[in-house]
Order: sequence, then C-alpha cells, then structure tokens
Amino acid sequence: MSKAPTTSIATHNAEDVFVRDKSLCHELIGKVSFAQMTYFQVIGKMPEPGQAAVLDACLVTLMEHGLTPSVLATRLVYSSAPEAMQSAVAAGILAVGSVFVGTVEGCASLLAQMLAAQGGLEAEARRIALDHKADRRAIPGFGHPVHKPDDPRSARVFEVAEENGVSGRHIAALRVLAREVDAAYGKHITINATGAVAAALGDCGVPVEIMRGFAILARCAGLVGHVLEEQSKPTLEAIWQSAERAVPYDGKVQ
Amino acid sequence: MSKAPTTSIATHNAEDVFVRDKSLCHELIGKVSFAQMTYFQVIGKMPEPGQAAVLDACLVTLMEHGLTPSVLATRLVYSSAPEAMQSAVAAGILAVGSVFVGTVEGCASLLAQMLAAQGGLEAEARRIALDHKADRRAIPGFGHPVHKPDDPRSARVFEVAEENGVSGRHIAALRVLAREVDAAYGKHITINATGAVAAALGDCGVPVEIMRGFAILARCAGLVGHVLEEQSKPTLEAIWQSAERAVPYDGKVQ
Amino acid sequence: MSKAPTTSIATHNAEDVFVRDKSLCHELIGKVSFAQMTYFQVIGKMPEPGQAAVLDACLVTLMEHGLTPSVLATRLVYSSAPEAMQSAVAAGILAVGSVFVGTVEGCASLLAQMLAAQGGLEAEARRIALDHKADRRAIPGFGHPVHKPDDPRSARVFEVAEENGVSGRHIAALRVLAREVDAAYGKHITINATGAVAAALGDCGVPVEIMRGFAILARCAGLVGHVLEEQSKPTLEAIWQSAERAVPYDGKVQ
Amino acid sequence: MSKAPTTSIATHNAEDVFVRDKSLCHELIGKVSFAQMTYFQVIGKMPEPGQAAVLDACLVTLMEHGLTPSVLATRLVYSSAPEAMQSAVAAGILAVGSVFVGTVEGCASLLAQMLAAQGGLEAEARRIALDHKADRRAIPGFGHPVHKPDDPRSARVFEVAEENGVSGRHIAALRVLAREVDAAYGKHITINATGAVAAALGDCGVPVEIMRGFAILARCAGLVGHVLEEQSKPTLEAIWQSAERAVPYDGKVQ
Repeated sequence: MSKAPTTSIATHNAEDVFVRDKSLCHELIGKVSFAQMTYFQVIGKMPEPGQAAVLDACLVTLMEHGLTPSVLATRLVYSSAPEAMQSAVAAGILAVGSVFVGTVEGCASLLAQMLAAQGGLEAEARRIALDHKADRRAIPGFGHPVHKPDDPRSARVFEVAEENGVSGRHIAALRVLAREVDAAYGKHITINATGAVAAALGDCGVPVEIMRGFAILARCAGLVGHVLEEQSKPTLEAIWQSAERAVPYDGKVQ
Repeated sequence: MSKAPTTSIATHNAEDVFVRDKSLCHELIGKVSFAQMTYFQVIGKMPEPGQAAVLDACLVTLMEHGLTPSVLATRLVYSSAPEAMQSAVAAGILAVGSVFVGTVEGCASLLAQMLAAQGGLEAEARRIALDHKADRRAIPGFGHPVHKPDDPRSARVFEVAEENGVSGRHIAALRVLAREVDAAYGKHITINATGAVAAALGDCGVPVEIMRGFAILARCAGLVGHVLEEQSKPTLEAIWQSAERAVPYDGKVQ
Repeated sequence: MSKAPTTSIATHNAEDVFVRDKSLCHELIGKVSFAQMTYFQVIGKMPEPGQAAVLDACLVTLMEHGLTPSVLATRLVYSSAPEAMQSAVAAGILAVGSVFVGTVEGCASLLAQMLAAQGGLEAEARRIALDHKADRRAIPGFGHPVHKPDDPRSARVFEVAEENGVSGRHIAALRVLAREVDAAYGKHITINATGAVAAALGDCGVPVEIMRGFAILARCAGLVGHVLEEQSKPTLEAIWQSAERAVPYDGKVQ
Repeated sequence: MSKAPTTSIATHNAEDVFVRDKSLCHELIGKVSFAQMTYFQVIGKMPEPGQAAVLDACLVTLMEHGLTPSVLATRLVYSSAPEAMQSAVAAGILAVGSVFVGTVEGCASLLAQMLAAQGGLEAEARRIALDHKADRRAIPGFGHPVHKPDDPRSARVFEVAEENGVSGRHIAALRVLAREVDAAYGKHITINATGAVAAALGDCGVPVEIMRGFAILARCAGLVGHVLEEQSKPTLEAIWQSAERAVPYDGKVQ
C-alpha cells in the first residue's frame, strides 16, 4: 500500500473547485449534464456526446421498476426513521447487490472474460453458458421472471447505442453469449436490462470494476421518489402486515 | 394511515415498464436525460427544458468537493469491505445529513417560511437572521470555511437559473435573506452552494420535503468516483494513521 | 470545536489493549459479561451488579419482536446482497429510529424533563400528557397495538429492577406520568417496553443522549438471528410478492 | 425457493412474546444474560454455562480497539448527521467486512475445511498455509501489525475456553494451522484475536455461516460508546483535516 497516497479527483481554493483539473464554476456548472459530469468525475475524461446519450439511457433504464426489494427497504426505513431520509436511501442502496441490479457487474465480468479469451470469443461464450448450466447457476444479465420472452428494455438500450454510434464489441459479445446461452439451455432466455446495460456501458468505456456504481446511482434516484411518495402515502403498515401474514411463525424448535 | 395504500410511481407487464403512466421503453429511454427522468419520477411531471437545465446545474454543483466526511466514510468502508461497493456508497450517503449538504433542506425551509409569512418576506427574513444570531445557530445555506468572501458556485447557479428563465421567487427570497443576514451580523456572510441550490431547486418546483433527496443523489454520483479511485489508490491506511495521530488517547478516567 | 480533540476510550500497545485504562486481557476478557463491558465502555465506569442485571434484562427485552420493519429491511437486503451480511444488519439498524424502538430516547427525554421541572414532577407530567393529547402526538413509551391493556414486558422489567435494587426515580417518574396519561386520555394506555426500558436504564445511570444506542445494540443481536434464518428459509420472495399485492399501482397522474 | 416460508424465531400475542417457543416475559427477561439470549435467539438452543462464558469473552474481546476504520466511519457520520445516531452505528457496521473483524468468518471457514478434510487435518493445514503463501494472500485469523510477536487477546481467549471446558476441536485445529503457518513462512506469525474468536466460537457451536454476525454485534456495542464520546468531544474536524493533509490532490489527468 502506498505510503503517501494522493487523489486525482478534486481540490478547491477560495475562488473555485477543481474536478479533475477543470474549473467547476467556469467549465462544468451549466455546461455539462449530470450524466456527463458523473462520467467525467468517475472515469476521468469527458464522454463523447454519443457516450453521454447512452449513459443517460442506461441510467433511465435502471432507475425504476416498482416495489422492488430496495424500494421496500427504503420505505420501511423511511417510515421508521423519518428524521433522516438519507438513511432510507442508504438502506435501499444496500440492496443493490449481487442478486438484483448489481448483476450488471457479473455480466460485465463475463463480457470482459470473453473479450480477453485466448481461444476466441465464441468458444469462451459456449464454455460460460455450459458451465453455468452444469452448475445450475443463473447467468448474470440473463433471464427475467416478468419480461418474457424478451426484456423490452434491452432492445431499447441496444437501439439507443446503435443510434449513437456507441454499439461496439461489448454489445456484440453479449449477442454471441446470448446465442450460446439459448443453445446450451435449448430454449430462449432473454437478455435482461442489467445485461444490456452492462454491455452498453462497456462500449461507453466504463470499466467492470465500477459498473455496479452506475446501477447504484440509477437506483438512488428512484429511491428518492419513493421517499417522497412514502411521506404522503405511507406503505409501512401494509408491507409489515402483509409480510407477517406471508411468513407465519411455525413454532419449530431445533 | 390509509388501510389500502397505493403507489402512483410505476408498474410493469411483460412488454413494458410504466413510470407515472409513461412507457419506459417508448417514451423515456433514449428520449429524456437522467436528470429529466429523475425530476419526472420524483415530482410526477416532466420538467420544462429550463428546469431540467437548472436541475443538471444543481446536481453538478453538489457532486464533488474533495475529501469530505461522506467521501472519507465511503473510502474507509470500501477498503474494509470491498466485497460490497454498495455498502461504501451507502456509508457516504449516511453522512449527507443536517450538517453538510443536507442543509439544502434547512435553507429551503427558511425560504418556504419567508414566502408564506403573513407579515411579509422582508420582516420574516429579518426575524430569521436575528433569531439565528441570538441563538448562535448557523443559518442553513450561509457561510463557508473556504469559499470566502463568496462561494463561487452560488453565483454560477444563479446565473444558470437566470439564463434559463427559472430564476424566480425563491432566489429572490434568498437574496433578501442574504441582505438581512449581512445586516444582522454586521458583516458579509456568503450564500453557500447548498443555499443557492435550495433556492434554484425551489424555483424549479422541487418541494422542501424532498430537497435533501437531490443532494443525496448528487453526492451518490461523486461517491462512486471515489470508490473507483480507492481501488487503485487506497487511502484507508493514510486516513486511519493520520486520524490516530490527530486524536490521541488521553487516558482520562471518569 | 476543540482544536486538539482526544479520546478516553481505548489505546493499545504490542502487549495489550486498554479500555478506559483497564487491561483488556487481564481485567476484562473472561471477567466481565458482554453487557457489563458495554456499560463500562460506553458510560466509563463498571456497572454495579444490580445495574448489570437490569441492563441484561433491558437488552433481552428489546432484542426480538418478530418480523418488525427492521427485520424486514435486514432480510430484504440480505437476500439481495448475501455477499455482505453486515449490510443487512446495518439496514435493519437504520430502522431503529424515532418511530420504533428508538422511542426509548423520546421517553427518556420526557422523564429527564419531569425530573428537572421547577414546578414539580406531577405538574410537569400533567402538562406533558395534556400537551401530547392536544397535539394528537403519540407519547413516546406509551401505547402498543398488540400488547393491550398492558405490555407484559414492562411489568417484568420493573420487577427485575425492583429485585435488583435499581428501581429509582426514573421508574417512579414513569409511573407518575402513566397516571397522568390515563387521566388526560380518560382511558388506560399501557407503558410499553421502550417506556419501561427508558426508565430502567435511566435508573441504571444511562444518559438520555445515548439511550437509543442500547436499543440499537439489542436489535442488532436480533437481526443477526434473522440473517441466519434467511439463509436457510429465504423470505424475500414472499415479502416482495405480498408487498406488491398490498400496495397496488393506481395509475394516478398528478 | 419455498412458496410458503415460515419463521421459527418469534411470535407474540397480547400477553407475551415467544422467542423460539420460550416465554420472553416468564422464561427469559431477568433470567438470561444478553449473551445467552443472543446465542439462544440465533442458534436456537440455550448455551451451556461454559459456552455462555466463552461467548461473553469473545464479544468482550472484539468490542473495542480504538480508532479503527469502523469507528472513524461512525464518528464522521455522527457529526455529519446527529439527527440519527442509528445511521452512525450502521455506517461503522458496514466496515465490519472481509478485511477487518469480519475475518472471523474467513478463519472459521478454514477451520471447517480442515475438520472436514478427507486427507486429515494436518495435511489440509499444510496445504492451506502453502497455498496462501504461494498466492501472497493473508491468512484470515493470522498476523497483526501491532500485536507482535503474539496477540495477547488470543492467549486469553484460549485460556477462558480452557477454564470453561469449551476448548475443543476448533481451537485444536487452529493450533495445528498455526504450526503449519509458521513452518510455511519460516517465521512466527501470531494468531490474532479474530482467529482465536473464530475457533472459540466454533467450539461453542456457532456455525461458520453466522460467525461474522457475532463480530458485528461486538463492534456495534463499541460503536455506541464512540457515538457518546463524539457528542462531547467531536473529532470530525480533526479527522477531516488530517485526512486532507494525508491524501493531497495530485492534479493528474488521465
């Protein structure tokens, strides 16, 4: 570990804040969108216009899907501790993990693995599909309980990437993987929204290592909306009572 | 509490997701920016173009200010638990409270109070300034340890609001309050970035009740960038050791 | 703010750790219980045996009450992000706020206010009861949706305090307050478990300022048990589906 | 996933709460310690007296070690958002992950692996030691930057286990592993406190799957003490300023 670590992200003086050496006041506020600024701060360079458009589309795609586990956690915490809405948002973000939404990272890893494979992309895709099937593991980025046979968001994300000239080797790799997945399972399994977003962000230059961070950001925005609605239309009692009915005590002693 | 609460935010079927009754796939992805989508999902109507521009500017303004307490919490948690970057982001968000950044809410409350005052805006502003001074309480949205005599971000936020035709009664009210604050304290105290953002978002139609949520969102984006940097340039040891030196054990027994 | 803050809690060298100047290895491990150690570390002096017994009783009392909102948050987060059980426990703790469990703090504040009242304890109790009734605010520490007419845990906590010679002016004050509450509302309202615990901990010397911390600790233990059960008997799907049914989309546009 | 999950932990009626089918009011409050109750609620049976004593010792051992990363996160969040001390405690708990304290889980896994090894405990220990050395990975439960050559807490935990007749095959396995680690590295590497606790809790019947939960609980108690001290002796400014000095901006553009 470096004895004297540094940061390249930001500094400030009395007259300005500098983010990656650009003046916040003169070069950024009012000149770049929130998505552009996020890409710039995280990745370290300003996105091309096409990349910015695709990033906007990806964040819009992942923001909202109704009363998901992360939304339920946010609402339960908000109505339990209304003194601190940041707690409620944080609780929802804690649920953006390896099972939901955070799966963008798992899918992005597979794509990176395919793109780096010595033996070629297709062979690697086949191996991935067969291995997951053999181990009965879900393939990150594939399958959806509701959006069948196809997740409509994925088609739309690919379309936006295409329109903006961003569709590249990650989306192509995902399509290869999808073909091999269908072949391995002997049936069509949809590319879900997190799969499509993983590929589209990959083509925008977002590294695997921080992919999940964009999913967290998208959901963060959605959670804020649920905090506001919970204020006027509280759902805690309904969630609590229905959960108690759905998960009864069985009195089993070890 | 309503016996049968409902949500107006989102629903879905196999073919689409609907957010506030708009088709996610056909009306939103690729058509609106992340900031527009956030406003739409949270507030319930699509922002005017000028409002969207100001919202972008406000989110850009609050995203980053170097190694703030929330960034430090994120970095400490990330390097302690790299298995779950959502934990690190959540830890940082927990620090967006009543003292830093979350002060947008406190300032927005004062502006709402002024705008609703029976006795007129100016009298209310004077009363607020004098009361805070008498109680030696900081006025939310005012003062900054570094950005003196003026916070450069605030001027820029007001400019963007002006350019976009959004500058209205909240920004005007904040200026009245600033005049009264200077008079009460007998010296110039800057309107800081959270003060300017509170007024600008108020003029965009963001209610006080969810103002803090936009500050949380802006910081969430910034925290993601610090997670990525912490991966390659870990700071945990440096923060830890310097904190141990800065806060020594005094051995005092009660 | 002090320029050179110190800590009085702990230090260490190669041979030992010192907590409030006692040797962890020679004076604490194997010599004091977890509850005693907690009291010692937090309050700064070793509890009397009776205080330790009452603290144990209070922590046992608040640990578990079935599928409460904090438990639901923990289970939802655990099954969404099993890579990091600390996230799940943290999410549940975020729900120990001003509405549930954290109400020990609210009740403790009222007792402190009564004990400090110039005009006497009884008059202050009457004023508190009437004020809350007039404002239609719940009185922290009073009332329970299930445990009616009386919360059985409270009677037991008082009994343990009595048996251990700890029952003092806080429990006495709570009884006065209860009498005035019943009078003000014209009906019997139970002292609930958080009310009883607030008084009992007050008589153990726990200051109001950190009362909520003991409730957090008790719940933390309970949440750990729910994480283990969630591993073998996952409830996420059942909670999620029942919540979606309980809170339907209403399609209302602003 | 079970269509109709149940819980075996708790239920309640007007007259009582039942935890694993024992009456909270008549069989638990005032009759069992906090540590006993925790074991009972989590594991599903009441601990033997010796197991309870060892559990107390383990929780006391892990509670406090000065200004660790989790304590720093708690203090930063508390002084940023004093409106919600549960947020501060939760932030600290988020840092009880795979790197610090949560390592009890990693060590417990190794011990379980040794105890299940077909080829015998010693051979497995040797393999583990050599593999970690070859991969330059830290062995969970071994090594400490300060407590050299030996972690004094570990010796004490083993002693307490011995005195209480709980020392069994997990502690024995850890000693075998320690011998092989020293041999593989050609020097003495201490068994640290989390290693000793992993073995002692294993001998108390705590499964690997929830081992980290006990570390979280121990630290939770310690964090509460730091919240109280932060109220009267705030450290945020000192931590923040020293971190900014320790991690300067380097102005490097990608």
